[in-house]
Amino acid sequence: MTGTITGLSTCDVRFPTSRELDGSDAMNPDPDYSASYVVVDTDTGLAGHGFAFTIGRGNEVQTAAIRALEPFLAGRPLDATLDDLGGVWAELVHDSQLRWLGPEKGVVHMAVAAVVNALWDMRARRDGKPLWKLLADLPPTEIVDLVDFRYLSDALTREEALDILRRAEPGRAQREAQLRRSGYPAYTTSPGWLGYDDAKLRRLCREAVERGFRQIKLKVGGDVADDVRRMRIAREVVGPDVRIAVDANQRWDVGTAIDWIRELAPFDPWWVEEPTSPDDVLGHAAIARAISPVRVATGEHVANRVVFKQLLQADALSYLQIDAARVGGVNENIAILLLAAKFGVPVCPHAGGVGLCELVRHLSMFDFVAVSGSMEDRVIEYVDHLHEHFLDPAVVRDGHYQVPREPGFSARMRPESVAEYRYPDGPVWTDIARERGA
Amino acid sequence: MTGTITGLSTCDVRFPTSRELDGSDAMNPDPDYSASYVVVDTDTGLAGHGFAFTIGRGNEVQTAAIRALEPFLAGRPLDATLDDLGGVWAELVHDSQLRWLGPEKGVVHMAVAAVVNALWDMRARRDGKPLWKLLADLPPTEIVDLVDFRYLSDALTREEALDILRRAEPGRAQREAQLRRSGYPAYTTSPGWLGYDDAKLRRLCREAVERGFRQIKLKVGGDVADDVRRMRIAREVVGPDVRIAVDANQRWDVGTAIDWIRELAPFDPWWVEEPTSPDDVLGHAAIARAISPVRVATGEHVANRVVFKQLLQADALSYLQIDAARVGGVNENIAILLLAAKFGVPVCPHAGGVGLCELVRHLSMFDFVAVSGSMEDRVIEYVDHLHEHFLDPAVVRDGHYQVPREPGFSARMRPESVAEYRYPDGPVWTDIARERGA
Repeated sequence: MTGTITGLSTCDVRFPTSRELDGSDAMNPDPDYSASYVVVDTDTGLAGHGFAFTIGRGNEVQTAAIRALEPFLAGRPLDATLDDLGGVWAELVHDSQLRWLGPEKGVVHMAVAAVVNALWDMRARRDGKPLWKLLADLPPTEIVDLVDFRYLSDALTREEALDILRRAEPGRAQREAQLRRSGYPAYTTSPGWLGYDDAKLRRLCREAVERGFRQIKLKVGGDVADDVRRMRIAREVVGPDVRIAVDANQRWDVGTAIDWIRELAPFDPWWVEEPTSPDDVLGHAAIARAISPVRVATGEHVANRVVFKQLLQADALSYLQIDAARVGGVNENIAILLLAAKFGVPVCPHAGGVGLCELVRHLSMFDFVAVSGSMEDRVIEYVDHLHEHFLDPAVVRDGHYQVPREPGFSARMRPESVAEYRYPDGPVWTDIARERGA
Repeated sequence: MTGTITGLSTCDVRFPTSRELDGSDAMNPDPDYSASYVVVDTDTGLAGHGFAFTIGRGNEVQTAAIRALEPFLAGRPLDATLDDLGGVWAELVHDSQLRWLGPEKGVVHMAVAAVVNALWDMRARRDGKPLWKLLADLPPTEIVDLVDFRYLSDALTREEALDILRRAEPGRAQREAQLRRSGYPAYTTSPGWLGYDDAKLRRLCREAVERGFRQIKLKVGGDVADDVRRMRIAREVVGPDVRIAVDANQRWDVGTAIDWIRELAPFDPWWVEEPTSPDDVLGHAAIARAISPVRVATGEHVANRVVFKQLLQADALSYLQIDAARVGGVNENIAILLLAAKFGVPVCPHAGGVGLCELVRHLSMFDFVAVSGSMEDRVIEYVDHLHEHFLDPAVVRDGHYQVPREPGFSARMRPESVAEYRYPDGPVWTDIARERGA
């Protein structure tokens, strides 16, 4: 295939999830789950799809940031671009003027993620493979060429990364077969949103166990007495052998986190997620030391590989939670998977939101086949909403993510969903505006 | 004065500085110094001015982020808002939907800075005082009310902050008089941009000493042999007693930073600035340990008070460089000044860019009068360009910033400058577009 990338189109898509309190937690009482959706276009008919996930206000700022990347893509030769996504990544991330707005964090970095992921979607479509399989078939030298080792070399060199990948090479075929047979373990956050009452919590916990999940997660951090009560209910319902993670969504200072977790400890929380600011490496390390044997997990708001590197160097986490669309997309997540493998820390991805389950399963499956070589003590988050808007939705059976089989990165939304939820001019939003005006 | 805040207006202002290589360094070869300029309007005639500083591409994204804050301001009562800027700060920073885009970093946080600084400009105009004087006249309890201690309490509590401010209270009048008499020491970066040839470097170093500066700064990190040569020239010209700082603008990994600084050590560099990623607390700490007695300075790209807290906790810097417009404006900089005072680390602000000298002098002068109580071992960066676009420009005499006397935060640009450099439709840019098209 020859051809040229012609440009990109963006769309501000928002779902009015705040109406149902799905997704409510101690820091995010009323999110409207949203996507800054991007389609990278070519003159061949091939297209790539990607997005940044936000929770409502500001999605238009995120969309503007994605548009700012169009000049870097328009006019590029298609195949040469898709075959050098390590080079494209570096060009986008290190653009001297745009990096001033980060560097490598927040809105500009999530814009890179959306575009880079869209290019990976396009490459996987071109090559007729789901992304996890495309990545898992690459030789180790090509995988390390995708990684930017800038700022990492004190923790992970290119040679060490190559060693990790080469050690995993012999078992690739066997692990791929296992994955196709059994899928990848999931845990569910659906029971535990703060906005749900106790009866709903109890019912959803029971259903989660019945559906095969071996781990659930509760949101905490609003009120300690409420959290103790909810944790007691959940433990009663799921029994002693199902893991219960708790998630504070950055609510606490270091001292408060330690005190709060001690209150919950009698109910055996498996990990505490985002106990404090995602920027606070030393704070996470202090919490981890104080609450052991309860474990610390974090990552969905960690800005980039440099912060993940330090969390690992400082023994600040027991579980590393990548997010498919916050750091700079596939390439930076490969760097983070390699860092985690080097430090022997299991990766348990963040998902939920809009389309994050669809994306991140590819990365964990690649990790299993070609990087860490292990599913032990690893689970991918699963939240059961908004999948119906995607053309290749995540499928979880008996508590396991099934292997995606469609070519691409599963990032493509249904055109009718994009049209309906487009903000502010899609019919869902014009109806809401009319109601509010009435 | 009663009244209401009616809204805000923004403007994308860009100066074509890349044409002269002013501002060129190892990471920023061709910046077009820019401002996302904001005016907060009222129905009383009073207005507040602020901006985010960027270096060109993406300034439109920054401007969109500032516009996203308008709904938080429009319709608010004027005096109640200006008298509770601690509350306003928290409301803007912790908005649950917008913080997803950071949190507290990058484009959304710089937008808060622009708006919060504009509100401070407005309050200082209303009260008829320059900002430094307004802040320096506040009682300690009102100052700590401006600070958000979230995520800080493991390093600095409200009570500790109050103690620091109370200890400084008795000497305020005397220090204010000293400041009015002698100003605040500056250092100059104008000689040391990477794009300048050796003759220009030599001439500008000589002129800096003649103009009374006791510290200059050279950009480094392009090529080590070049840096050794430039450092030798600078040391020859300024003699042994003028401090020469070097600035790598994040160019290096940890190991490279250590090796490079050892090459420059014979020429006695005073500090090395931004040796690596601004997110790398542990990396800065490792560099600091390895290059002592050369000192580490950083801060212009440090995202927020949480990262500054850790840099201090980890002994990762000897000089803390606040920036007036990257963290969340005046309020967060007060938190950072208090943290630095607690840890006994001198604050030497970053300036230059567009209007950063104008703003940050107020913060250092407030620090001297009411927080640290000291000018010892402290200098504010000074870069001699673009001041002509401001109505209350920074004035440096005999190597010292003079005290601003106009009411406000000195953030107001000349209307004719805004009109001329407005991007892309101001006459400067339409001319450039014509040239490029020709």
